[in-house]
Formats: sequence, structure tokens, C-alpha cells
Amino acid sequence: MKIINDPVYGFITLDQGLVAQVIAHPYFQRLRRIQQMALAHLIYPGAVHTRLHHALGAYHLMGNAIHELRLKGQTITPQEEEAAKCAILLHDVGHGPYSHALEQVLLPKLHHEKISLLLMQRMNQHLNGQLQTTISLFTNTYPKTFLHQLISHQLDVDRMDYLTRDSFFTGVSEGVIGYDRIIKMLTVHDNQLAIEEKGIYSVEKFLISRRQMYWQVYLHKNVLAAEKMLVKIIERAKQLYVTHAELKLQGPLHYFFEERNLSDEELLHYFVQLDDTDIMAAIKQWQHSTDKVLQKLCYGLLNRDLLKCKLQTTPFPDEWIQEKRLAIQTKYGVSAEESHYLLFTGEASNTTYALNNERINICLKNGQVVDISEVDNPLISQTLSTPIKKFYLCELV
Amino acid sequence: MKIINDPVYGFITLDQGLVAQVIAHPYFQRLRRIQQMALAHLIYPGAVHTRLHHALGAYHLMGNAIHELRLKGQTITPQEEEAAKCAILLHDVGHGPYSHALEQVLLPKLHHEKISLLLMQRMNQHLNGQLQTTISLFTNTYPKTFLHQLISHQLDVDRMDYLTRDSFFTGVSEGVIGYDRIIKMLTVHDNQLAIEEKGIYSVEKFLISRRQMYWQVYLHKNVLAAEKMLVKIIERAKQLYVTHAELKLQGPLHYFFEERNLSDEELLHYFVQLDDTDIMAAIKQWQHSTDKVLQKLCYGLLNRDLLKCKLQTTPFPDEWIQEKRLAIQTKYGVSAEESHYLLFTGEASNTTYALNNERINICLKNGQVVDISEVDNPLISQTLSTPIKKFYLCELV
Amino acid sequence: MKIINDPVYGFITLDQGLVAQVIAHPYFQRLRRIQQMALAHLIYPGAVHTRLHHALGAYHLMGNAIHELRLKGQTITPQEEEAAKCAILLHDVGHGPYSHALEQVLLPKLHHEKISLLLMQRMNQHLNGQLQTTISLFTNTYPKTFLHQLISHQLDVDRMDYLTRDSFFTGVSEGVIGYDRIIKMLTVHDNQLAIEEKGIYSVEKFLISRRQMYWQVYLHKNVLAAEKMLVKIIERAKQLYVTHAELKLQGPLHYFFEERNLSDEELLHYFVQLDDTDIMAAIKQWQHSTDKVLQKLCYGLLNRDLLKCKLQTTPFPDEWIQEKRLAIQTKYGVSAEESHYLLFTGEASNTTYALNNERINICLKNGQVVDISEVDNPLISQTLSTPIKKFYLCELV
Amino acid sequence: MKIINDPVYGFITLDQGLVAQVIAHPYFQRLRRIQQMALAHLIYPGAVHTRLHHALGAYHLMGNAIHELRLKGQTITPQEEEAAKCAILLHDVGHGPYSHALEQVLLPKLHHEKISLLLMQRMNQHLNGQLQTTISLFTNTYPKTFLHQLISHQLDVDRMDYLTRDSFFTGVSEGVIGYDRIIKMLTVHDNQLAIEEKGIYSVEKFLISRRQMYWQVYLHKNVLAAEKMLVKIIERAKQLYVTHAELKLQGPLHYFFEERNLSDEELLHYFVQLDDTDIMAAIKQWQHSTDKVLQKLCYGLLNRDLLKCKLQTTPFPDEWIQEKRLAIQTKYGVSAEESHYLLFTGEASNTTYALNNERINICLKNGQVVDISEVDNPLISQTLSTPIKKFYLCELV
Repeated sequence: MKIINDPVYGFITLDQGLVAQVIAHPYFQRLRRIQQMALAHLIYPGAVHTRLHHALGAYHLMGNAIHELRLKGQTITPQEEEAAKCAILLHDVGHGPYSHALEQVLLPKLHHEKISLLLMQRMNQHLNGQLQTTISLFTNTYPKTFLHQLISHQLDVDRMDYLTRDSFFTGVSEGVIGYDRIIKMLTVHDNQLAIEEKGIYSVEKFLISRRQMYWQVYLHKNVLAAEKMLVKIIERAKQLYVTHAELKLQGPLHYFFEERNLSDEELLHYFVQLDDTDIMAAIKQWQHSTDKVLQKLCYGLLNRDLLKCKLQTTPFPDEWIQEKRLAIQTKYGVSAEESHYLLFTGEASNTTYALNNERINICLKNGQVVDISEVDNPLISQTLSTPIKKFYLCELV
Repeated sequence: MKIINDPVYGFITLDQGLVAQVIAHPYFQRLRRIQQMALAHLIYPGAVHTRLHHALGAYHLMGNAIHELRLKGQTITPQEEEAAKCAILLHDVGHGPYSHALEQVLLPKLHHEKISLLLMQRMNQHLNGQLQTTISLFTNTYPKTFLHQLISHQLDVDRMDYLTRDSFFTGVSEGVIGYDRIIKMLTVHDNQLAIEEKGIYSVEKFLISRRQMYWQVYLHKNVLAAEKMLVKIIERAKQLYVTHAELKLQGPLHYFFEERNLSDEELLHYFVQLDDTDIMAAIKQWQHSTDKVLQKLCYGLLNRDLLKCKLQTTPFPDEWIQEKRLAIQTKYGVSAEESHYLLFTGEASNTTYALNNERINICLKNGQVVDISEVDNPLISQTLSTPIKKFYLCELV
Repeated sequence: MKIINDPVYGFITLDQGLVAQVIAHPYFQRLRRIQQMALAHLIYPGAVHTRLHHALGAYHLMGNAIHELRLKGQTITPQEEEAAKCAILLHDVGHGPYSHALEQVLLPKLHHEKISLLLMQRMNQHLNGQLQTTISLFTNTYPKTFLHQLISHQLDVDRMDYLTRDSFFTGVSEGVIGYDRIIKMLTVHDNQLAIEEKGIYSVEKFLISRRQMYWQVYLHKNVLAAEKMLVKIIERAKQLYVTHAELKLQGPLHYFFEERNLSDEELLHYFVQLDDTDIMAAIKQWQHSTDKVLQKLCYGLLNRDLLKCKLQTTPFPDEWIQEKRLAIQTKYGVSAEESHYLLFTGEASNTTYALNNERINICLKNGQVVDISEVDNPLISQTLSTPIKKFYLCELV
Repeated sequence: MKIINDPVYGFITLDQGLVAQVIAHPYFQRLRRIQQMALAHLIYPGAVHTRLHHALGAYHLMGNAIHELRLKGQTITPQEEEAAKCAILLHDVGHGPYSHALEQVLLPKLHHEKISLLLMQRMNQHLNGQLQTTISLFTNTYPKTFLHQLISHQLDVDRMDYLTRDSFFTGVSEGVIGYDRIIKMLTVHDNQLAIEEKGIYSVEKFLISRRQMYWQVYLHKNVLAAEKMLVKIIERAKQLYVTHAELKLQGPLHYFFEERNLSDEELLHYFVQLDDTDIMAAIKQWQHSTDKVLQKLCYGLLNRDLLKCKLQTTPFPDEWIQEKRLAIQTKYGVSAEESHYLLFTGEASNTTYALNNERINICLKNGQVVDISEVDNPLISQTLSTPIKKFYLCELV
């Protein structure tokens, strides 16, 4: 047994055996070089924690959750425990550099969960098939559904850890959730995770904290601006890469900019070599580019000179945008097409976080199971389950 | 300047002058012997903090709030600052033993805010009129309304401190509010307190935390049971006091049990000598009473052998109660009338905490001021502003 | 299983069975009415936590410690675990009102650990002999010495909890110890508790924190003043009790003031009815005494008008004291004998906390076991193990 | 005024004007890409905070310290406040990638404080001489010595922040210091910083915490191993750089590997483009090197497969090392010379942190000023002021 210090939970105990092998694997260690909150640290300077740290935190909560369920009479074998722990350690192994921010633009055809699965399968080969149950749990093909739900569901240990951890490292105390209380309230009903009735308020608090973190942090207008700049940088670099020799990269990122048709196998080979370093090194190189647009975006991002971002509930009027666009073309001497890198609009939505068709089961004292939105005097009503859409406009000023 | 350690805020700096005189006054020191959360410590053993501690905490937040408002250009004179600080120190000086729990039964004719005012007026005489502005602020007769609102309003420093402090000492992390962020978001608009737009989420969080503390702590079924036992003890003792010599008390509490008609002046004279000690000493004495009802209630409360409490959203059926009542009469050999001390029902409601006609002003970026329930995508809608009523039944088992 | 919220540890899980019976016992519940830090709250307003709360905290750490030792291969049966937990719950059950402060003066013949044992034996009768192993562990007559050491030794869970808890409730962050790390470093060597080598710094930190809490809090000059006032009050009241009818008390405290010769059995009978309430009620009554000395001391303590205390490393010169004494006699019109209640000196020493002949075993990586003062580059040397004596003078001003 | 969230202090308020200009400067923003604790995150996964974050934290404490000194009657002009704040923001601006770890090997001729000064002078030109006072304070040529001491001395805000922050992000609670209490105890005596007598215990605690952080964290054997690996990587790469084309780097790091003689001016030009990214990108490239030694070290560091490190108080015997060295040559097929990259010894010492000739002045209640080691019953004696030396051996296994 090995113990590591964690500022969030105090200590995390690491198991021997398969867990230790998974942690030591280069695919997992790579997560050390991917920041959990991408560029949010430009606004919240403490938010520099890594995906590896989050994975270890979620692993810790998984251990606690399994301990509680066993105390309540649920049978979970040591093998199932190990598999559940490995699955949560690896649930984000498919994240690329700057995670969500770049996902769509670097590997437009592959979702990170799909990559996670592909990488688990590869690791399973390296580890002589020891990850078989892990993979079943991850893909929800294992009979004990509630174990899968601990990994991926409305109230999984993934979300419990990232909300707790992100709120800890940003210093946004409003995001704090009672993860330990929620875990103590976990129970299983009909092979599904459920929460005991007296845990209702903690679950409500969890959902409200998520809402708060969403708008105050994840979609903070400057965080949005920084992440959109990053996307524009990659898009611009992709556009110019073949023709501009000065942009040429030495490392694995190179293969994601060339127009070659790589097989999935080849893509993965280069993918596991990628991390935030590659993007940052590229941006540092490109800040000296002869292309004005790329130069400005890279220099701005490096020196925290961000595009100005406006966030509102109604769309921006087309003519008004058009006027601004013309002004930018004049001011910076860029073409109409190029101006779309320096002024653009879009929609931000918390749909991902809204209540969808996955239920949060509440197990009432009378034995009945209802959804959190169906309890007496629910806080979670229509209001909260409707996705909220906001419109943003980013521009160079 | 004097510095005291506070586990909640780190340090609290106490001013010299009038503030020091108020703190040294016996009326204020009496609050040291009144627990902020009455009997909640029977369920949350850490919740033993005092009204004096809460008053000092609210005083600290008042200083912070005034500092912020000044930074934003609001003129607040040193005299006004001193008065606002004294007013918040004294806002609860009229609380009697076990605060809210006993208010209705010990002094049925006087609300604690009324007593606070009467005591401030007396102190004002002791302090040669130095509390004049303090009293104006407390009674909202001072022109700068926003200063009164810092003392008593939807988002005053009183509530900010008690939620923070109660949640700290109970260990209910879900009750934590971002008091420091709310204070940084304070502003004044048209002589009224308002919150800057970017503070919306913190205010929502504050309201949700209050809701949570209300149901999870203040109205926890066992807290309710304990406090109702206390009420029943006092009621029973009042009923028997004159006829049962064994109940006779030595201290000031005596005067609140005798049937004498005391003037307000006399009442106050004895009132300021009362604190939790008197009640607890009485209960310790009465646990040996020959009256079975009083004896059982006192012994139970002292030894944490509480009445069993049930809390639900629908009223309890009359016949069912009647059956139970008969059973209790038989089991404990008490009369029908006496059985009402050992089995009773009632309603608990969070109306006090619900959104009422006091607004929480949000100052939008465009300069407009709206209520928190009128912002885009409000969390605070009908649901939350409707009072929630629950029915309780307590019984000896 | 029952869970309670603790602001210090988050949650404490209470076992069923004997543990629950011990907690429900009136002897244990009495600890709810004895403050852990006596009058320290007059200086640190948050320090109002109770002996019951401390006992529950130490119980929690005992569970953690046993869990760790088992992980390291130590055999501890469920019965032994239960007994160790009951022993730590009851280790302070013999404390009287205001604990250490009044111990010498209320019951001069009985040390609180002796009373704890007597009360455990009585409880053992009430509980049909179930506390037999508990008592063996408490008295160190059980073969597994290390279990006794968890209850009472240099690094027992008692000290770990009270340092952690006192530092938490006073807000003195310097007193914080790494209790969780120390517990993870616990091991057993030759039936004795020991600490793994890599835990050295945590143990050093523990000892330094204790030193700091000792001088900054437990022996803070105003805390000292308050506690000495309390002692003087009791001494004066004892002196006058028989002759001054006005001092007569209603409750159990009465029996400790009368000159009757009570048997140990009778003493215990009244002792278990005593708690802080009785002392405070007496002081409230006596503040109206016709005896000037008693009146002044009681009024001062109630209203935090403390004797002025000076603390220094050299004794106060006799003549200087004599002069002051005469001045006080004149100023307050008291006799020479009475003046000793209003001006007195004494010695405060941290001997209780200093390193004595109980070792702290460090288990080196090479298997050798040495004392903490014998490791390489020890922090704990002569300096720290020498008792420090300070001289105090308290006087009415 | 701008407010940022800080997980350590809650909020940090950023001033307008010169402070804002300094923060916005690319030299300062570069610190965002240099981790405060270099590779310690391989052992303490939370320790990923940046030098920029530390600089902002120290800036915050500087504001608090100046506020306290003013309250105590010290005159500090707004210009001096601004200069002191800028000086602390910039005190570490001369740090290169991986800070202390690489300082000696990348720029062997220049200490980071020297570079900090050179960069401040350059920035002073960019900012039209506004940093003149800042530079005087930094170089201790400004008359108010105590302001310089707040920036660099035994108890400066730099150390207060890094101990607090490092202990926060590593999760090593034993390192927590009472920075707020120390700041409240600051005073000025004869133009020198001093600590009020009642702050003695907090200062002792500060020194003990530093000792603890030193041995438990900064010189943790695995942290040491990782940082020495990094040094060996750079040394090996420097050795091979000219002859091995595959090692050639694209970015600014290139200039520190070529044998060209750069002027200080040129060095600085490239230096300010360097950060952790460049080192990490190089290591990622070199892990595929054909040089076995470089390949092993780079791959090991990237995947947390560290050299095994032993730390002891006596030197390692030469013959024993020699034997091990031969074994490594055989096992890995490397030359005797190459084996020094894979097995090496050295000394770690806490001299940097030990008490040197800079005093910590304690201002006694009687007005006398003495050193912390000269107070009554000092904790800080010979023991603690003697540098402790340990010997390490790192080897590939």
C-alpha cells in the first residue's frame, strides 16, 4: 500500500496489483501533462491541477463509495472493486491536450470516451487481459449496473471529484459539494444506484453547485475567450500548415496537421504522445509567425492578452457584427475571411450539465423510489432542467 | 485595537471606544451564556457556539461590508461605522435563554427584537446617549437606509454570519456560503443595498444554503423534538409552579413562573439576569419532580432520551393520534390532559426564511436594478418563494 | 450504524451495541454539560466545545488507529476494538465541572482518572459486566499493551483529539497537528506502540504544537486569571458557606460545600449530578452576596471583568507584592486575609505536557527502535524536555 | 480594482496603475509557465502551482503587511506601497525553467536574483522609469530598510507565501504556518522589521514548518531523484548536442546548448522566452534518442520511472559505490563515464533554510529587542541553526 498526499482529501491510499500497474502505465502518466481545466488558470490562477490528479481523486471516492455500499449489505467482490477502481482511473485516459477545448478541432472524428475505450483495450493487451472486467464496467456490459453508474451517471464519482477539485483549486467556495455526505447516502435499488431520502438536500446542493461552477467558471467569459482563441489558433495553423514552412513542428502534433490519411491505429500511436506541452510549444513557436492572424492570437494567448468577450441571452444582431467586422479588417489590415479569426460569435450552453434522461433515484423511507424532481417540494423543477443557452461574441480590441 | 481568534474568520479586530464599551457591558456579556442554536447540539455536538460569538462574527462582517462600500465610493462617516457596528453587536441582545425555542412561552408578550430595542435604550442611558445613532440605524429611522439593511434585511450580515457560523459548527458543509464574495459584490443603489450582477450565483447559493440548513438542521426532526420538549417542560412547570413547592427556583427565572403582574421595567430587570444556565439548572432540579410528566420530560432532555418525532408533508389523521394518545395514557398512567405533554403534533414551516416582500436587488451591468427572481434564467422562482409547511408528531415511546 | 456530523473530522460513525449503550448512559451524557476548555472561551470565544464532543472525537480516531494497525497485520479482535472504543469514550468520564480548573478544590482527595475508573466500575454493573475488557484496557492490565497506549500515552488518541479540537475551536491554527498522518504512521513493536521513521517530522510537529497550545492558550495569562478567579470563588464560598445563609445552594453542589463527611459512595452519587451548570448557577447567585470579596469575584467572572494577570520567568519580589497587597486592602476595604483572594501569585508549569519517562518509540527503517530524542538531528532535545516554569501574579485593579 | 480567486487566501485584490502594468508584462506572464515546485508534483500530485501564482500570493501578503504597519503608526507612502508590491511581484522574475533544479546547469554563471534585477531594469525602461523605487527596494538601497526586509529577509512575505502555498498544494498540513498571525505581530524597530513578543510561538512554528517542509517535501528522496535526473538529462544533452543532430531543438532552449559565446544581452533575450514547456518538449523529443543514457533518463522522467534514491546521514562507502557502478555498466551496457549519469551521489543540505546571520528580531514588552534565539526558553537553539547535511545516492534499477 502506498499513500499519497492530496490537498483535497488529505490522503489517498493506492492499492497494489492491477491498480498500481495501471497507474504506472505511460498512458496514465500522460494525464499528468494535461491540465484538468485547460486555460481556466488564466482567470483562476490556482486551477492548474491535472487530469491525473482528478483521476486519482475519483479513484479515492470510488473506494469510499464501494466501502459504503458494502456496509449496506451490497456484495461487491474484490475483483469487482479492482475493476471499478481501474475503470475510474482510466475513464479520461482518452483526453487529448487541453481536453474539451480542443477535442472537436484536433480529432474531429473521435470522441474522447471512444478513445478512452480504444486505449483501455490496448492497455488490456499490455496487461495480459487483466482489464477485461474494467472494460465491461466502463461499457456497461457488466451485470451489476450500479457499478457502471458509479463511473458514469448523474451522480458518479467522476462528477463528484471534478466539482470538488475544480472548486478547490479555483478557490470558488460556492462550488463545494458535500461529496462525503452524498457517498454516505448511496444505496442500491433494483441494481441501480439511488440516494437515501435524507440525502435529498445534498443532491440538490450538488446540482446547484454544478450550475454555479458552469456559469461562474467553466463558461466564464474570459475562460471562453481563451479557449476559443486556442481553437482559432489550431484552425488557422491547420489552414496554413502545409504552405507555411515556418509552422512546421518537430513532435507528434505534426501528424495531426498534415493532410495524410492516418489509420485509427496510427492516430492512436501519435495521440498517446500528445499532451498540453505540444500545443504550448507550438504556440510559442507560432507567436513569431509571419501570418498576422496566427501571430496575434498566439502572442495574445501566451501573454494573457485575451480577445474581449461579451456573453448575453439574446443573439447579437447581424448588422452590428458586420460593422464590427469591417472595422477590424481596416484596423488590422486583414481580409474578410481572416477577420473571422479575430471576431466571431457562437453559443454556449449548459446542456451537457442539465438534467437529461438519466434519473437521480431517491429511495424514500417508505421504500418507494422516485426521481429527484418528483420528491415533495422539489428544488429541481422545469427551470433547472431546461438547457440555458447564451450567446457570445469575441473580438480583438 | 484588540485582536481575537475566531475559528470561522481567522481573526476579528475589535475597535476601541464605543465598540469596546458595548462589548464590555453586562447585557452583551450575557449573550455568552446563551447558545446560538439552543438544543441543536444534541444532534450536532459541535453546535455549542454562543450568541456572543455570533454577534462578534456579524460585527466583523459589518466592518468588511463598510470597507467594500467605501471602496466603491459610498460615503460612510466614522460615526456611522461605529453606530452600524454597535447595532449589529446588539441586534440579538434581547434574546432570552434558548432563544427562539423559548421565546413564545417565557415572554409571550414580547418579541426579542422589541426587547433588543428596550435594552439598547437602557444601555444608551448607561453610555450617556452615545448609542443614539445606533438606535436610529436599528429602527430604520436613519436616512442612510442601506446601513439599516446591512443590519436587517434579506442579505444582512446577521444572516451571512449565522449561516456561515452554524454551518461551520454543525459541520454541515452544504450550508457554507460565499460570504466574502457576497460582501465584495455589495453596492448601493438609490440608498438601497444591491448586489452586482456577477454576484447572482453567490446570492442563489446563499438562498439554497439557507433552505438546506433550515430542513437539515434547524428543523431536523430530533432538534424539533428536543426544542418542543423544552417548551413542554416550561409549560408544565408553569402549570404546576404555584402548587408544587418542590419546583421553586432560587434565581431570576422564578419571576417568570409566578403569576405576578410585573411591569415592563421589572420584567426587563429580571430578564437581563436570565440565560441558558437558569433553564438548565431548573431542568436538573425538576428531573426529580414528583410530577411524572415533568420528571419524564426533564430526565429525557438531560440524558438525550428524546421524544420520537415524525415529520411529513400531510397532516396526521385525528383517529390515529387519538389511538396513540389512549395508548400513552395507559402505558404511562397519565390523564388525557397530561398526555398532551407526551404526545403532540404541530406544524413546522420555513416561512421565516422564505422570500417575502423584502427584495434582493440585483444591479445589472446596464445599470438597471431588478429583483433576484427577475434575472435571466432565475433559480429563485415560485417554487422557492412558496412557504413549505411540514407536520410533526412527537411522542414518548 | 449512526452517523453524526463533526466539524473537525467531517463525519463520525457510531457503532451499535455496547458503544451505543455507553453513549446513551447518563454518566456519558453528563459530559455534554462540561466544557472541554473550562473558561478559555472568555479569551477564545469559539472554545465552547464539550467533553462529550472530545470523547466522540477520540473515539473516531481510535477507530482509525485500529483500522491502520490491522492493515499492518496486527490482530485486534472485534471485542478488543469495542473495548478500546468504550475505554476512550469513558476516559474522561470522571471529570467534574470546569475540569482541571476545579479538580483540586472541589474534590481535593480524588484525581479525575481515579473517579473515571470508579464510574466505569459502576457502569459495568449497570451494563452487566460488559465493560470488563474496557476496564482492563483502561487500567493497563490487558496483555495487549499497545491498546492501552492508544488510550493513554505520549501519542494517544486522547491527545491527538484534544490538540486538534482545541486548536480548531480556538482558531489557533498553529496548534493544528497532522493527526491523520500520525495515525497512518502508527505501528506496533514488541507489544508497544511505535511510529514509523518517516513519521518523525509529524511527531515533532505534534510536540511543538502542544508546546504552542500550552503557552498561547491553556496558560494564556487571561485564561489563567479566569481559572484562578474560579478557584478563589469556590475557596471563598467554602469558607463562608456554613455561616452565610444567602450562599445556600439548591442542587447537588450543596454537598460539596457542607462539612459533612461523605463516603466515597455518597460522593460519587452527588458527583455524577454535577456539571458546569451548577457552578455557573452558584456564581450567578453569589454575585449578589453581601461578602464583598465573593461578590467582586463572581461579578467579575460573569461579566468578563478579569483580574489583571502578569506572567514572567522570575518570581515576583516579596516586598513589591506586600506593597500592592496593602494598597488593595485600602482601596477595597478588605482585610489582609481577604486580600489574598484579590491578589495572589503562583507558578504555572508545563510539566504535565513535557517529555517524561514515557517514550515515543520511533521504528527506524533498519528495524531498530529508538526514542524520538535519539534520532539523527533530533528537534526534541534537552531544551524541550525540561519543564518550563513561569510565575504569575493576579490582582484586582 | 480587480479581484481574483485564490484557493489559499480567498480573494486577492489587484491594484490599478503600475501594479497592473507589471502583471500584464510578458516577463511576468512567463512565470505562469514555470512551476513553483519543479518536479515535486511527481510525488505530491497537487503541487502544480506556478511561480506567477506564488508572486500574486506574496503580493497579497505584502498589502496586508503594509496595512498592519500603518495601523501601528509607520508611515508608508502610496508610492512606497506600490514599489514594495511591484518588487515582490518581480522578486522571482529571473527564475528559469524548473527554477532551482536547473539553475546551476542551464545558466551556471548567473544567479536567479541577478537575472531578476537585470529583467527589472529592462522592464523599467519599457515602463519609462516607473520601477526606480521598486529597484531600490529590491537592492536594499532605499532608506526604509524594513520595506526591503518585507521582500527579502528571514520572515519576508516571499517565505510566508511559499511555505503556506507549497504546504497547501502538496496537502502537507504540517507545513501550515500562521501567516496572518505573524503579519499581525509585525512591527518596526530602528528601521528594522521585528516581531512583537507575543508572536514568538508563531515564529517558532514558522521555522519548524520550514524545517518540516524541507525534509518531507523539498528534499524528499523521490523529489531529489527526479530533480537530479533532470539535471543529468540537461548535462548529457549538452555533452551530445553538437554531435547528435537528432537532439536539435527548434525553440529558444537551442541557444543554451550551443557552444556560442552569447553576450549577457543576448542571453537575456533568449532567457525570457524560456519556460518549463521548452524543457518538457525537449525531454519528450529526446526520449527517442539513440543515446541509451539520454533515452533512459528522459523516458524515466516522463513516465515517473524514477531513479532509486537513498538518503542517509553518513557518506556512502566508495568501494560499495564502485561495485554498484560496475554492475550498472554490465547490466545496461554503458561505459564507466556514462554510468555516472545512472548512478551518482551527492549531498543535500538545508543550509539555505538554516538560521544564518540574518536575525529575527523579537520586540519584548519591555521595549528591548533580542534575537529569537535569545528569548526565554527558546525553541531555536544550536540544534536548529546548525545546517543538516544528508548524503544521497541515486541509481537506475
